[in-house]
Amino acid sequence: MEVDFSRIKVIGFDADDTLWVNETYFREAEEEFTSLLDQYETKNKIDQELFRTEIDNLSLYGYGIKSFTLSMIESALDISNNKVSQTTLSEILNLGKRMIAHPVELLDDVEEVLKALESKYRLIVLTKGDLLDQERKLDRSGLSKYFHHVEVLSDKKEMNYKNLLEHLEISVDEFLMVGNSLKSDVLPILAIGAQAVHVPFHTTWAHEEVDPSSHTNNHLTLSGIRDLLKYL
Amino acid sequence: MEVDFSRIKVIGFDADDTLWVNETYFREAEEEFTSLLDQYETKNKIDQELFRTEIDNLSLYGYGIKSFTLSMIESALDISNNKVSQTTLSEILNLGKRMIAHPVELLDDVEEVLKALESKYRLIVLTKGDLLDQERKLDRSGLSKYFHHVEVLSDKKEMNYKNLLEHLEISVDEFLMVGNSLKSDVLPILAIGAQAVHVPFHTTWAHEEVDPSSHTNNHLTLSGIRDLLKYL
Repeated sequence: MEVDFSRIKVIGFDADDTLWVNETYFREAEEEFTSLLDQYETKNKIDQELFRTEIDNLSLYGYGIKSFTLSMIESALDISNNKVSQTTLSEILNLGKRMIAHPVELLDDVEEVLKALESKYRLIVLTKGDLLDQERKLDRSGLSKYFHHVEVLSDKKEMNYKNLLEHLEISVDEFLMVGNSLKSDVLPILAIGAQAVHVPFHTTWAHEEVDPSSHTNNHLTLSGIRDLLKYL
Repeated sequence: MEVDFSRIKVIGFDADDTLWVNETYFREAEEEFTSLLDQYETKNKIDQELFRTEIDNLSLYGYGIKSFTLSMIESALDISNNKVSQTTLSEILNLGKRMIAHPVELLDDVEEVLKALESKYRLIVLTKGDLLDQERKLDRSGLSKYFHHVEVLSDKKEMNYKNLLEHLEISVDEFLMVGNSLKSDVLPILAIGAQAVHVPFHTTWAHEEVDPSSHTNNHLTLSGIRDLLKYL
């Protein structure tokens, strides 16, 4: 498709699964969770139940590992009819702690791309989730130096982006968002009149999936973040 | 004491226990927690153990109700030697959820004070804790309209304040912070060369307490937020 990025001055990068690996660790934790509970239910049923609990708790807990850990404990009690052992619940707490302490694994080419873009654009990070956790990951990633600003949002809906661009005094036609989630990084950005580039990650949380019919063709999809440099 | 607020242009307000009640609900939850576990230990020992767990987890979990809930579950398992019942653990999860869903109770005179100050100063909220939770409380408080900016920080140390003032382009000699915590709202602010007003709340979390000898006399302490209007 034809894109025109000539007016872009500010590029917003999503963080989880755009700059570094994230969803993979949630999937691994889910695997571990299902094996901890495999005496009570089938893997499929456990996955479903955990997902349902996470979604039920989303408005109360928000995104992030602490929310996920609380939902795992709640589901473990539910799925086992309160029979899950105290030791297993302890293991679930530790599983959550290991996720938080996990080293940051940058995605391919991320640093080279940021290095190439930083002199020409104002780069910012726009992520959702847990404030402390995201700050820590950025710190560990070694990428802070490329960014003018980091904003952790409680959600990534049109209104969150609108307010943020206003607050940072960024005009919508000068803003480009880059991220792996159509639902959070692309569609709301197009809806407010800015531009977005989709760089899919191999794994997407079910909650981030969107009906394919809602995809527009007003954005570029790239197979890797390095391809940004062909356009910018 | 003599204070000179003539150069102040921006006032930062802490939120929890400065604008609205917060610590009280944590104390009530702790009471409930100790009675759920009173068959295993004395009240005093349970309080100590929970506090120790919270502090141990602080660097990993940060502040807020989700962190507190996870620490309650961990302590309940520890204190009971893994004997705490699954039903009790469920009740602890629900206790945390009730805290999150709790209505916001404004402290006396807060709205009148904000109303009186908003035309003369730029008012901002500077709080720490859980992003979603703080946004929700501000929203429910009905106070959003008085504030130019709201910032949720992962911590309130000198560096956090320095970075924020820089980002918001606020000069230190034009900034006044108002809050209930000497440790978080007053001492780091004085250390970076800005001014602070201490409005104590009747209850302070042990972690927020400071050695009285570290108190300086370079700040004003008020018995209630309404007294701000005598100086501003």
